[in-house]
Amino acid sequence: MPGVRPCRPQCRAGRGAERVEAQAGRPVPGPLTLYWAPTSPFVRLVMAAAHELGVAGRFRLVEATVENIVDVVSPVNPLAQIPTLVLEDGAVLYDSATIVAWLDARYGTALAEPLGGRGADRWRVATRTAAATGLMDAVVAERHLALQPDGHRPDGFIERLRARRMRVLGYLAGRVAPADAPVTTDALAAACALGYLDFRFPSEDWRGAHPALAEWFAAFGRRPSMQATAPEAPDAPPAPTAASAAAKAPG
Amino acid sequence: MPGVRPCRPQCRAGRGAERVEAQAGRPVPGPLTLYWAPTSPFVRLVMAAAHELGVAGRFRLVEATVENIVDVVSPVNPLAQIPTLVLEDGAVLYDSATIVAWLDARYGTALAEPLGGRGADRWRVATRTAAATGLMDAVVAERHLALQPDGHRPDGFIERLRARRMRVLGYLAGRVAPADAPVTTDALAAACALGYLDFRFPSEDWRGAHPALAEWFAAFGRRPSMQATAPEAPDAPPAPTAASAAAKAPG
Repeated sequence: MPGVRPCRPQCRAGRGAERVEAQAGRPVPGPLTLYWAPTSPFVRLVMAAAHELGVAGRFRLVEATVENIVDVVSPVNPLAQIPTLVLEDGAVLYDSATIVAWLDARYGTALAEPLGGRGADRWRVATRTAAATGLMDAVVAERHLALQPDGHRPDGFIERLRARRMRVLGYLAGRVAPADAPVTTDALAAACALGYLDFRFPSEDWRGAHPALAEWFAAFGRRPSMQATAPEAPDAPPAPTAASAAAKAPG
Repeated sequence: MPGVRPCRPQCRAGRGAERVEAQAGRPVPGPLTLYWAPTSPFVRLVMAAAHELGVAGRFRLVEATVENIVDVVSPVNPLAQIPTLVLEDGAVLYDSATIVAWLDARYGTALAEPLGGRGADRWRVATRTAAATGLMDAVVAERHLALQPDGHRPDGFIERLRARRMRVLGYLAGRVAPADAPVTTDALAAACALGYLDFRFPSEDWRGAHPALAEWFAAFGRRPSMQATAPEAPDAPPAPTAASAAAKAPG
């Protein structure tokens, strides 16, 4: 098939899915096309939910990078954000919460408490998921604003984001599920947020302050859905440029 | 009742609801307490939905300001963001999409296409709502980053947010509903986003580029739910300080 590249062996995050070449301004037709990046925590939430539901292999992945995301994604999503899912009939779904809810409605029963409908405790799950995705938002924004060039870093704003991150960690630490609890959407979101924090701020010792949360994360991280979607640093990470730092990057 | 202040006559945004004094670190007990600000577009979406459902009078409003939002809201929501809703039993709900879905599930039938369940077209509604709230996000972030002091403004980042705003306006302009269409959640979100754009960037001539969208907005804006929740500039707006600009402010 033209334009299709096999997933690179080292690309664990795309395991089980086919990858399709990104083409600016040309939405890719076909079944369940997911605009995707291996490091985005929002994408990881969708991919991890798809792995839990056993349907990750149904996606064709179009990779969005810092450099191409506006050109590639904006024709289907004016926010130019990922994940964005294009269905068989061309309908477009975002953001991550909407996609996870759709996946569960179409394929579900694997998530004990999904988003958007089945669970008895759906509002609690939706709110905890919002807290976890808010943590993702804060870490993504903090990273990109910290990469701004000298004279363009909003230090006060960055400090507020950091304080928010600390509060959400405390919130999550106060709600640690038993290690053998059934998988819920909010737990997936929390684990993806913590994984992204580790990925971008590996020197931060949040485990020291929250040992029970660290223990939960270690156990939850052994799930196949988490293993299959873990972000990996590229082989030779390019130094960020001012232009790439200014972009709303995938992750 | 101690701590209760009547709504000021000029405060249209809180019409129909009781206001309760904010107290740092002390969640306010009682029925349906909404952490609120008169200018937040996310809060306006919830209030407008409540007006459509005829239940705005059930809220007790606790006002979050730039100065107090972390102290007042973070005890119930670690993101320290509004809207945040505390239910009768102490359960806490956020973000705006979750609250609107809850309101509709408890009180609904007024919204032709609600979020989160009833409508035949729920995924389209959720995605369009995400586009509109993404526009709110971009305008809020652009405003706050533009208020950063000299030497701390991330100009490249701000430019990307502005480009996103323009794309979403084009997206909304391509999907203008008939003036007499039944009220849907995504339409409420689009109108609240456009209202906030006008409120914060009144000199921007988006109507010139998108006359059909402007006409729809003018007609939709005459709904009682929109009239009752329109943001008003304070009588004497204080000049923003560096500290307040750095905050994730209510709006």
